[in-house]
Amino acid sequence: MNEHIVTSYEEELALLDKRIAHMGGLAESNLATAFDALARRDPRLAEMVVKSDRQIDALERDIEAQVISMIARRQPMANDLRHIMAALRIASDLERIGDFAKNMAKRALAIAHESHPKPLMTGLGHMIELALRQLKVVLDAYAERDAKKAMAVWRDDEQIDAMYNSLFRELLTYMMEDPRNIGISTHLLFGAKNIERVGDHTTNIAETVHFLVTGLTMADDRPKGDETSSTLISGD
Amino acid sequence: MNEHIVTSYEEELALLDKRIAHMGGLAESNLATAFDALARRDPRLAEMVVKSDRQIDALERDIEAQVISMIARRQPMANDLRHIMAALRIASDLERIGDFAKNMAKRALAIAHESHPKPLMTGLGHMIELALRQLKVVLDAYAERDAKKAMAVWRDDEQIDAMYNSLFRELLTYMMEDPRNIGISTHLLFGAKNIERVGDHTTNIAETVHFLVTGLTMADDRPKGDETSSTLISGD
Repeated sequence: MNEHIVTSYEEELALLDKRIAHMGGLAESNLATAFDALARRDPRLAEMVVKSDRQIDALERDIEAQVISMIARRQPMANDLRHIMAALRIASDLERIGDFAKNMAKRALAIAHESHPKPLMTGLGHMIELALRQLKVVLDAYAERDAKKAMAVWRDDEQIDAMYNSLFRELLTYMMEDPRNIGISTHLLFGAKNIERVGDHTTNIAETVHFLVTGLTMADDRPKGDETSSTLISGD
Repeated sequence: MNEHIVTSYEEELALLDKRIAHMGGLAESNLATAFDALARRDPRLAEMVVKSDRQIDALERDIEAQVISMIARRQPMANDLRHIMAALRIASDLERIGDFAKNMAKRALAIAHESHPKPLMTGLGHMIELALRQLKVVLDAYAERDAKKAMAVWRDDEQIDAMYNSLFRELLTYMMEDPRNIGISTHLLFGAKNIERVGDHTTNIAETVHFLVTGLTMADDRPKGDETSSTLISGD
């Protein structure tokens, strides 16, 4: 609450949402930039993401400090308490999304001098596109308190998982074709896993929004599409 | 608060810590069992972990409900508020550690019929041993409100990261030697990454304990030892 003096409870709640929107915007832009850094092998873009991630971390701390202070001073009940706890939870998911972008950017630094397998980068590109769209929609759903929108994001996470599964198999095949592909493929594999996990955190946010608006938790077992951890790969 | 009727504030705080201890115990035991499942290729052990993870998730929800209820009814200030928020944060880290154990267990199911590269399993074994010891110590540090113990855990995370870096390189070498090793090595690579991330969450808990006891945050930039995301691997 450094920006201006907040007097009313409503203003405090609005500031909380402003901070979430700011964090969400940074997370989106860092994800997009991290992917560009990877695709163009541009270390300068990668450095930008690493730096900007510190801002995301600082915003999470601001939000947490504000939440604690509001609880202590305002002693919120029912709806307001749910609002405040939702903001805290969303901030934590956004912070983790920021970490995945940072991790991807670091990989861009590592492979800046290697040549990329074009078709695999296209697959990764489709994954990041969908992940970015989902993140944008879920942030809108929060701002607009739109449970239906949140539900749609929750449902579409399966698509990201399906893309990950298919890319995972392609990358293994690529490794097997030529051992010289193993280094780069490993980095792209972790990159794809990062995007898949971004999707999971976006889904968490969708669940939080749904709960905030309806007061109901979603079905406990959400569709889980990442099957690669239980896939038998024989390597023959 | 189903177990018994809680009357005093102190009893509520004690119940919170009891739940954290319970969650921590389950996380430890699931991690150990997940590794055994992997090492012995025992699908029954793996199934146990997957089931037991639901209990961890349920405990996290209990803790969260209790925290919200305590804040609403007790309107805690200063130390008590810090205690309650610390419990909430630790529960979230323990839930994520449980997820990593579950993920490792699922990989055990996937590779149940493959033969294991012995020396690589030994490396993974050392990693899990250290990760388990660190988790145990940090849970003690919370129970005993021991900031020094927490600080030691925080410092020693570098060792897990160093083990991960070395195992990462060994696994890549192993893949390059023979393409038939790629499938199993990829699973072990993600397994090692899981343990490395368990270490990160253990370090988060250490930071929370330190803050709870001293009121001071640790240095912002903690030692980061996982360098593989920024390592150039040429594959030649």
